[in-house]
Amino acid sequence: MTTVHPTACVGARGPLGRPLGPDAVRLHDGSGPEPARSGLLGRWQRRNREATAPHVTREIRGAGNLENFRRLVDGTAADSPYRGRYPFLDTDVYKTLEGLAYELARPAAPGEDPALVAGLRDFYEEAVDLVTRAQAPDGYLGTAFQGPDPLRVPWDDLAWGHELYNLGHLTQAAVAASRGLDDRRLLEVACRFADLAVGRYGDDGEALYCGHPEVEMALVELARETGDGRYLRLAQLFVDRRGSGALTHTVFPPEYFQDHVPLRELDSVTGHAVRMAYLGAGATDVAVETEDADLLDHLLRLWDDMVATKAYVTGGLGARHSDEAFGDRYELPSERAYAETCAAIGAMQWGWRLFVATGRADILDDVELMLYNAYAVGLSAEGTSFFYDNPLQRRPDHEQRSGAETGGEPLRRAWFGCPCCPPNVVRWAAELQDHVAVADERDLTIALLTAADVRSDPLDVTVETGYPYDGRVVVTVTRASGDARHLRLRVPGWATEGGRRLAVTVDGGALDARPDAGWLTLSGPWRSGTRVVLELPLQTRCVVSHPHVDATRGAVAVLRGPVVHCLEQQDAAAPVDDLVLVGVDPADRPDGEPTGAAGASPAAADDPWSPLAHAVTARVVARPPASGRLYPELTDPPAAPEGEPVVTRVRLVPYHLWGNREVGAMRVWLRRS
Amino acid sequence: MTTVHPTACVGARGPLGRPLGPDAVRLHDGSGPEPARSGLLGRWQRRNREATAPHVTREIRGAGNLENFRRLVDGTAADSPYRGRYPFLDTDVYKTLEGLAYELARPAAPGEDPALVAGLRDFYEEAVDLVTRAQAPDGYLGTAFQGPDPLRVPWDDLAWGHELYNLGHLTQAAVAASRGLDDRRLLEVACRFADLAVGRYGDDGEALYCGHPEVEMALVELARETGDGRYLRLAQLFVDRRGSGALTHTVFPPEYFQDHVPLRELDSVTGHAVRMAYLGAGATDVAVETEDADLLDHLLRLWDDMVATKAYVTGGLGARHSDEAFGDRYELPSERAYAETCAAIGAMQWGWRLFVATGRADILDDVELMLYNAYAVGLSAEGTSFFYDNPLQRRPDHEQRSGAETGGEPLRRAWFGCPCCPPNVVRWAAELQDHVAVADERDLTIALLTAADVRSDPLDVTVETGYPYDGRVVVTVTRASGDARHLRLRVPGWATEGGRRLAVTVDGGALDARPDAGWLTLSGPWRSGTRVVLELPLQTRCVVSHPHVDATRGAVAVLRGPVVHCLEQQDAAAPVDDLVLVGVDPADRPDGEPTGAAGASPAAADDPWSPLAHAVTARVVARPPASGRLYPELTDPPAAPEGEPVVTRVRLVPYHLWGNREVGAMRVWLRRS
Repeated sequence: MTTVHPTACVGARGPLGRPLGPDAVRLHDGSGPEPARSGLLGRWQRRNREATAPHVTREIRGAGNLENFRRLVDGTAADSPYRGRYPFLDTDVYKTLEGLAYELARPAAPGEDPALVAGLRDFYEEAVDLVTRAQAPDGYLGTAFQGPDPLRVPWDDLAWGHELYNLGHLTQAAVAASRGLDDRRLLEVACRFADLAVGRYGDDGEALYCGHPEVEMALVELARETGDGRYLRLAQLFVDRRGSGALTHTVFPPEYFQDHVPLRELDSVTGHAVRMAYLGAGATDVAVETEDADLLDHLLRLWDDMVATKAYVTGGLGARHSDEAFGDRYELPSERAYAETCAAIGAMQWGWRLFVATGRADILDDVELMLYNAYAVGLSAEGTSFFYDNPLQRRPDHEQRSGAETGGEPLRRAWFGCPCCPPNVVRWAAELQDHVAVADERDLTIALLTAADVRSDPLDVTVETGYPYDGRVVVTVTRASGDARHLRLRVPGWATEGGRRLAVTVDGGALDARPDAGWLTLSGPWRSGTRVVLELPLQTRCVVSHPHVDATRGAVAVLRGPVVHCLEQQDAAAPVDDLVLVGVDPADRPDGEPTGAAGASPAAADDPWSPLAHAVTARVVARPPASGRLYPELTDPPAAPEGEPVVTRVRLVPYHLWGNREVGAMRVWLRRS
Repeated sequence: MTTVHPTACVGARGPLGRPLGPDAVRLHDGSGPEPARSGLLGRWQRRNREATAPHVTREIRGAGNLENFRRLVDGTAADSPYRGRYPFLDTDVYKTLEGLAYELARPAAPGEDPALVAGLRDFYEEAVDLVTRAQAPDGYLGTAFQGPDPLRVPWDDLAWGHELYNLGHLTQAAVAASRGLDDRRLLEVACRFADLAVGRYGDDGEALYCGHPEVEMALVELARETGDGRYLRLAQLFVDRRGSGALTHTVFPPEYFQDHVPLRELDSVTGHAVRMAYLGAGATDVAVETEDADLLDHLLRLWDDMVATKAYVTGGLGARHSDEAFGDRYELPSERAYAETCAAIGAMQWGWRLFVATGRADILDDVELMLYNAYAVGLSAEGTSFFYDNPLQRRPDHEQRSGAETGGEPLRRAWFGCPCCPPNVVRWAAELQDHVAVADERDLTIALLTAADVRSDPLDVTVETGYPYDGRVVVTVTRASGDARHLRLRVPGWATEGGRRLAVTVDGGALDARPDAGWLTLSGPWRSGTRVVLELPLQTRCVVSHPHVDATRGAVAVLRGPVVHCLEQQDAAAPVDDLVLVGVDPADRPDGEPTGAAGASPAAADDPWSPLAHAVTARVVARPPASGRLYPELTDPPAAPEGEPVVTRVRLVPYHLWGNREVGAMRVWLRRS
């Protein structure tokens, strides 16, 4: 295995090199003297630091996750029962710590209130102290399982206990703290717990594994961080044992746990979507580090099948509310899409690992779709409330499950009884820069187009772009080593499909550039000051769905670049369910001249969080039902609507910004004429 | 309230009279010397007696429901814990007893093996004995709540405890045994338990109610049976208190229990579909007996809204697996339709009561749709295995939840951990004759067209028909009283829509008959031997769905009369998801000359349970996906399929008979050209 000491959250190396971490990539977050240079990912990251992370630490304090540790430390456990219903609530602390390790390592923005980072540091120090002291002498750590009257018995139920899942998130936080802050306290805790797991479940232990995959990728990263191959071996065992039937399942069936067949025999992503995504990510790590080409090929087949048959147009995953699960191939209902925010995060983790392992650009197209839609929609514009499930449609009289965990609240919620998503957002947003570029000794590859400074052995560059809202990408070389060979830019698939062309100039000279398999590869010689301008044909376009998708037959989704748009009721005069899409204007530029009556208002354009600032325009006609009958007899030819249809223009806002105004109906898929 | 001692299971009286019971209606079941005269409902009832009821009694014995009573009776309770996970498993015994009370009262068919009825009687006697002796001295009865170490504490959790639900089913069995067998043992038990409930929750008791409605209709029927108005009053209190917020809900939200608003303020059927249907039925009983016209009007609005916005084309109810619940209006996914068999039974109970209360024929159109589709599909052709949920589509690689309760087994199952549906089928099938006709002193009204002998004060008639597979209905008067005025026959709505006409003759003479609001009303004078022949235009027809239904946009469902048809993979050469329906032949007669290559085979036609015996023919073309892409860009105009489309004919079998051959893909809604 590799012995490099990586600083990005995924320490793998592949054909294009290894991911660059926060020491090498700084997102432009608009906090400096040039706010106009900020990019969307940088703004997200700043929002995460300023709003989401403080909110999540407050909520965790209020919910009692820290008290679950404290009671074990201060001797009050007998009087203070475990708080919460689930045995995995420690992981909300761990995921938050993982994100905070990044934020505490990141330099403060100019003018940032010192109280902000002080508050984050307080939580970090308090939590690390509690976690460290709560560990049992044998290395065990799981507050639901410790103390005089525990919620559960240790190692009694690996299917549902989440104990190794707890270890996994602990380990990821520990690796982040070690790499980012040079703080080894959590790493020592994680190693002790992992050593216990190696003893219990290693080659000489019980042939078991956790019902919720997660620990696999954490153990591989721990092996990368420590150089200890036992952790990699344990991860490999966990991947290989899955499907052996060794777990005892209750309530949920083996498919839910991806435990009905061995992973290598699984023919399609199955069961609980978050579990499946984490399993795919961990197994990819194992395949890479053990050089298991068969396993990697199989994981690529599963990924390709997933995005070809089981993914929403938003990149969302999980069609079923019961089991929070993938459904059948092409089972993709809009209104009851589960598409859990955590599933998008897990799938991006999986896809990123597959990309690093293979260099395949098309995988990043799907990761980008998840990033700008299925993931981003999970967070409110102000960054302090969350969707758990992310449907693609909301009906006008949507029936909510008040008081339930996950049933489509009218708007995003501040917290959940099972709060897995919010701290997952915190760590993912804090790690965004780790997914922007990879490099080896001679080539720099920009994987995600976003505004950032990027340093690497061969080249340092500055990327300036308003992507995904704007198609212009300017890459300026700020330093070139003598060994620098290629600057490789990812060109999204949609940019060269449907007759679209991109334009490239280098230092003002046009280049007849054709991307090869998604990569625009530019050769040197390189010098500081070289300026590459990429103009992506960011046009509004319509997609339909595969004919086997019943849920969206006869409907159209509108995208601009990787951003899926939707129609919110407040932007239409007629009920959104009555509207039929007639057309869009490909050249419609939300930040330019509106083509119709409903372009972005100047006021909205000033607010980057405003849905209307990034709207596109569609032409629609209203076709209300001819009768109230639910199943009218088919008449041939159908009755023509009375009178001439009146074409009106409506604004379609980015899906990831829906639900930030008053509650109303929403559709991603619009009826088609 | 009425003081008549009724023998039908619903002892209500309405504008057309009161329902005729098993003393008055005998279904032709094909067991006599003239099997050809049998009707579908009669054959179902015979199958229930010969196959389903014996199967269910065996399964109940095996599952331990009787042991739950026995342990309380024989002193073994301390050593023998309650068997099963749910607190309502007594009701499986009660529902079976309700059905058996009908079967034991029914004369044996000629040539019937005496061992059959002896076996049913053994179960009945054993169960009645155990139930009677298990009752606590204070009248309480609920085996999960009794004994030294009960599963639950009595009256501790009305939201989830199902204790009054237990009382409800006990009471319905008791009323059936009293009416059919003149056996008052269960009635005494039920009255003691009901008296306890009156004391606890009557006007002077706690203002609570059961989380699962059911007891309301049972209490009204107990009042009708005993003449004791306290039971009616308690039912009224339960209906009126619902939505007061008095129940403490866990796991499921108040909507699940129809407890978020008072029933009179509910604007659409909501929550758990079985609970909603039972609540509707019980509230209708209360409205009728308390002459509460406002409540009845409100219930009619709820029903009308339900069938206009929340019912599947099969009459199935419940779009959501999570919560087993209704969804939003027009949220009707085919593949994940929940459409629980019990919800169809509950809705038929509700609809029948609304019909009796109003005389509205259109309500029976929907009841009939439920009967021949959503209900009937729940049982296998041989009558011994069951669907719990009833989707309208099965994909070729349908992912099952192995081991789970309700998640779409490959085929119907013999039993369930929550076996509510099978015994519900037993009692409903045993009571079918109670839903065929109503009469008052001068008029006889045939509500459901099926082969039967019907006796009433004004007229005795014999109905001969193969309906719903055949449109010819012959009604022969076998006795006429001097007071006889009208013979009223229900004409289903589809028979006079789309330009279709029905033909009627009386003693051979054609009648220019036009039904009025679904009723063909024939006036006397009547004499024995008068023969009315009704020819319904039973044509194959296509329906589409309301434009707000996303799940079935661009698709067509094929019906013949009230029977919904579907395409099973074994009847098509191409994948069913690739087929586009071009047309049907309205005059296609499955029992006559096949119009295409795929008519009923002679062998199949001999077997009334064969799906192919009742198939219709559709013309289809195969349109496989142009590419494997999940979301291809919309090109305008769309690429034309290569070559001339080849039209083939496929057989569409009745939906209620699907899944009786090998497991494969199935679609009710076919893609439309």
